[in-house]
Amino acid sequence: MRRSEDASRLFDNDKQTVIGTGGRAGFATQERHDFAAIRGPPMTFKTPIRDMRFVLQHAAGFDALEKTGAYPELSDDLLEAILEEMGKYCDQAVAPLNEMSDQNGAKLENGVVRTTPGFKEAYAQYIESGWGSLAFPEEAGGQGLPQALAVALVDALNGACMSFAIGTTLTTGAVKALKAVGTDEQKQLYLEKMVSGEWTGTMNLTEPQAGSDLSAVRTKAEPVGDGRYKISGQKIYITYGDHDMTDNIIHLVLARLPDAPEGTSGISMFIVPKVHVNEDGSLGARNDAHCIKLEEKMGLHGSPTCVMSYGDNGECYGTLLGAENKGLKNMFIMMNSARLDVGVQGVGVAERAYQRALAYALERKQGRAPGVKSGEMVAIYEHQDVRRMLYSMKALVDASRAICYANAVAYDLARTANDEEKRQEAKALEELLTPISKAWSTDRANDVTSLGVQVHGGMGYVEETGAAQHMRDARIAAIYEGTNGIQAMDLVGRKLQGDGGAAARAFVQNVRDEAGILKAAKREDLQHIGQRLNAAVDALDASTDGLLGLAKDDQEAVLAGAVPYLKQFGNVAGGYYLGRAAMAAALSAHEGVGDKDYLESRIAIAKFFADNYLTEAEGLTASVLSGALPRLDPEKLSA
Amino acid sequence: MRRSEDASRLFDNDKQTVIGTGGRAGFATQERHDFAAIRGPPMTFKTPIRDMRFVLQHAAGFDALEKTGAYPELSDDLLEAILEEMGKYCDQAVAPLNEMSDQNGAKLENGVVRTTPGFKEAYAQYIESGWGSLAFPEEAGGQGLPQALAVALVDALNGACMSFAIGTTLTTGAVKALKAVGTDEQKQLYLEKMVSGEWTGTMNLTEPQAGSDLSAVRTKAEPVGDGRYKISGQKIYITYGDHDMTDNIIHLVLARLPDAPEGTSGISMFIVPKVHVNEDGSLGARNDAHCIKLEEKMGLHGSPTCVMSYGDNGECYGTLLGAENKGLKNMFIMMNSARLDVGVQGVGVAERAYQRALAYALERKQGRAPGVKSGEMVAIYEHQDVRRMLYSMKALVDASRAICYANAVAYDLARTANDEEKRQEAKALEELLTPISKAWSTDRANDVTSLGVQVHGGMGYVEETGAAQHMRDARIAAIYEGTNGIQAMDLVGRKLQGDGGAAARAFVQNVRDEAGILKAAKREDLQHIGQRLNAAVDALDASTDGLLGLAKDDQEAVLAGAVPYLKQFGNVAGGYYLGRAAMAAALSAHEGVGDKDYLESRIAIAKFFADNYLTEAEGLTASVLSGALPRLDPEKLSA
Repeated sequence: MRRSEDASRLFDNDKQTVIGTGGRAGFATQERHDFAAIRGPPMTFKTPIRDMRFVLQHAAGFDALEKTGAYPELSDDLLEAILEEMGKYCDQAVAPLNEMSDQNGAKLENGVVRTTPGFKEAYAQYIESGWGSLAFPEEAGGQGLPQALAVALVDALNGACMSFAIGTTLTTGAVKALKAVGTDEQKQLYLEKMVSGEWTGTMNLTEPQAGSDLSAVRTKAEPVGDGRYKISGQKIYITYGDHDMTDNIIHLVLARLPDAPEGTSGISMFIVPKVHVNEDGSLGARNDAHCIKLEEKMGLHGSPTCVMSYGDNGECYGTLLGAENKGLKNMFIMMNSARLDVGVQGVGVAERAYQRALAYALERKQGRAPGVKSGEMVAIYEHQDVRRMLYSMKALVDASRAICYANAVAYDLARTANDEEKRQEAKALEELLTPISKAWSTDRANDVTSLGVQVHGGMGYVEETGAAQHMRDARIAAIYEGTNGIQAMDLVGRKLQGDGGAAARAFVQNVRDEAGILKAAKREDLQHIGQRLNAAVDALDASTDGLLGLAKDDQEAVLAGAVPYLKQFGNVAGGYYLGRAAMAAALSAHEGVGDKDYLESRIAIAKFFADNYLTEAEGLTASVLSGALPRLDPEKLSA
Repeated sequence: MRRSEDASRLFDNDKQTVIGTGGRAGFATQERHDFAAIRGPPMTFKTPIRDMRFVLQHAAGFDALEKTGAYPELSDDLLEAILEEMGKYCDQAVAPLNEMSDQNGAKLENGVVRTTPGFKEAYAQYIESGWGSLAFPEEAGGQGLPQALAVALVDALNGACMSFAIGTTLTTGAVKALKAVGTDEQKQLYLEKMVSGEWTGTMNLTEPQAGSDLSAVRTKAEPVGDGRYKISGQKIYITYGDHDMTDNIIHLVLARLPDAPEGTSGISMFIVPKVHVNEDGSLGARNDAHCIKLEEKMGLHGSPTCVMSYGDNGECYGTLLGAENKGLKNMFIMMNSARLDVGVQGVGVAERAYQRALAYALERKQGRAPGVKSGEMVAIYEHQDVRRMLYSMKALVDASRAICYANAVAYDLARTANDEEKRQEAKALEELLTPISKAWSTDRANDVTSLGVQVHGGMGYVEETGAAQHMRDARIAAIYEGTNGIQAMDLVGRKLQGDGGAAARAFVQNVRDEAGILKAAKREDLQHIGQRLNAAVDALDASTDGLLGLAKDDQEAVLAGAVPYLKQFGNVAGGYYLGRAAMAAALSAHEGVGDKDYLESRIAIAKFFADNYLTEAEGLTASVLSGALPRLDPEKLSA
């Protein structure tokens, strides 16, 4: 059949030299774990180590971490070595599972969730290699490396297979909560195995009537007198609420004590293990906590999204984690890094969509250059409209990666910088960037993955091509862990108004300074980027002032401007970090250090971003400040 | 189970009073056809008759058609009556099939394509009611009504069920080709049954190596001496290439005659019936033309996308349609209206996504107003960020509908206006707007349907909610019938450079005039819209001048600017037509004619569009004119 021959030609791994890593046969012999049983399309992902390192060092300010003294072993060589190992694991053990995760997703069979074939083995290797404990302190069994490296891992894992990656990230959040507010006994029972990843963790927040607004949580917890609590209720959208990759799962569950106050101040957090843990650490009886349904989702099929039922038989027991009625407050301990991780999911899945689209655009031949009527058709990469899509994808991936990595470095510096002022400064930046990392990166992941479909033309709409999967997978990231609308409200509320605009203005000043440096550069392209950056940051400044003015007496108007403000902020931040990277690339190129073509491509991408996304930022002030949207009668808005 | 109870409560049709039409029981008793066997979710669509009529009359200039004399029976009453009937058919017979079309799509069984249960009956009713022949001339068995009404039908049908609707639209294109270049014998054999819809038509263009670039078509046609041609080859992506709704399908197939020149000038078009038709019109032998595979697609599951094989047994016969080697040229006869129809698909599916999201936002309760700490939760429609999404969806639906309808009116006037100058003017507008209707409307349909998912929060990602289906269905429209990149190239190529910018400049002048009228209005909101429109059209003007300047010696730069230019043009056109509608609404409101709240909502939406999309248009000139994108070494762009 001509059609399928053609399709196989297009996706023949041997021909995808740009992103191929040598085919499946290569890794099967290198790895201890047996992936031979997994049949899937050839690998189409390579962890972008070069880009990740460049962004960490030249946009995100990773070098500052080496100076804190908090990471004595950290060096450029160690960074390189870790990224290399990370790449090997993700490319060889995880990436080949991606298509399978879509086609053969998690299944609920006789009350047990079965994950995609191969997940269990890949997860075992994850634990053995110590990836789960990368950024946890050594005293908690971790490796004491910066969060920025853990974020790079999240990036690589999500590029390899988003539905596998999400399973590893949630445990990290649960560990942070346990570490912060757990009792010694709780830590002793759970911490080590969760840090290593031998047991996974979940977050149980949502109930049907309590989604974005957790004040309506109804799940109950009743003390039984021996320090334990009887839990009863149902939770929905519980990611990896059950699975077969580990022999225990530690659920963190929001519930109400008897007579707890209404609303958010009456919510407590509980540790509810799937299997009870004896004092000696051995596993005891099965708890009465079960997955009773898996959601059928648009994508991310490999990630089991569970309806969890606690205490159906009246025998679900847990222990209180943290103080009574402080569940929501304690949950916020892990909120910042969880939100950052979701932003990075967007970066990872967008990277994969980009790699696939680039490979296709270099392979697929259609049409000719303008004015050329005959002869061989050219690769569609040669067409300006296709090249624009690829530039857009690359620019958005690079910008969102830079924002998220800078956010992670700020997270680390907020905890490890040498003096209090620097820690506070970093903390303010971390807080400010978090909703932008989460929302901007995931909105842009939707853009990038949709462009990835478009680059493929008709083939993009056909599932076997794989481009559509990335678009379907990516779509959730703008929704969960606080919808992007909620992120925008957080930005204009707690983050902007919380400090009277101080953090935002400090950021604006940094951007302005960088624009000045770029404008003063000798190269015209850098000057051009500097001018665009300057105009965009002026617009952001105007929006910031405008919103702070409105905040005095019109919170509705502030909220109406939240989403375009976050978009504008993200565009400016992206342009800022890419501008920094371009400046560094130009210096290296000038000094003859590094691959000149690679360095020039960084500058070209930064210029493209400036011409298309910084200019977009300029126009957004009008949207930000256009005022509260009147309440039109819905009848008049409908058919 | 609490979860599913909650879900059913949210989608209980009785509660969706805004868009409900009384439930399925109501229509089952009214209609002759039996839809009782079709179980599906309750209806969630109502044809937006009020909006459609308002846009036709006050934005698209429908009234001009009444003055041409070409449609003697046309009147406001007839328009109203037709829209009403259209709405009944679409709401009651088609819309209930939508979810089923996704879950139980077309299947290839033993060489025969089975469509979604209920499609056959709904299609039978389509023929009986005469919907297929609405805009065909009476001498061809049609009803002689304007194309603008046929476009309204396409809008309504696609809102009701996109995968059903596409099956009806393709026949229209085939009829146009047949009417234009068919021989008397061919017309006699096929035309009447195709006009009525008793037989459907297909377009067979694409082959694996010949997608956007048809010069590579390889399918062969050899004359056998009796006026017939033996056809051999395979075609892919053939929409409704086979199905069970009619007893014959008339394929129009692009193929090469022996010794035809290479490239596009060697392509001819052939009529290849699924079942041969005898001279007396009765059906003869089965032709050797078969669907051998259905594509598994991201969405539009109800629409069979076929791999068609012609002459596998050497027995496929067809007749030449039009002159030898003029196949591509003749195909362009139907191109404009086919592209417009695809744009309107975007309008329809976006409308449905909007209606669903609005209903959900009015029903779903979460959170409270700013500063309110306790008490009942409010409908999420009350939150500014959710309201912004709904306003955005509505504004984009209205704007794309207005552009497409104006395009259709131009199509009609180009053929029926009383004097040659007006016909030429209309023709120029039709040509100019066609790529914008197609690409802008479908790009915006992607935006709108994605926002529809977002409004639903986590539920949007769960397939049972239905929001995700619209996003998956809509995604193809930006790809087929010429990708949106190709539309943009058409705009900056044939349309802009073809007449030296005359049509674009005339459009710019019309917009400028309208902006002047709005600015001179007494109402401040209209003045505001006028100012925004003026600034946006200045930017469009600058882009137009800039591109025409670049065209002299840098076609690559023109092509690089094509996509942002089309976006900018669409935003300005949308703002222009919505501005016209707002002006008309203000006049009616001032005169006390019509529903004041409805009229005011038109103005509010136009203002929202101005504040968000006209301002976006302003910033796009920089993107349009930023020059050709350098050919970066792909290695440097990859991991």
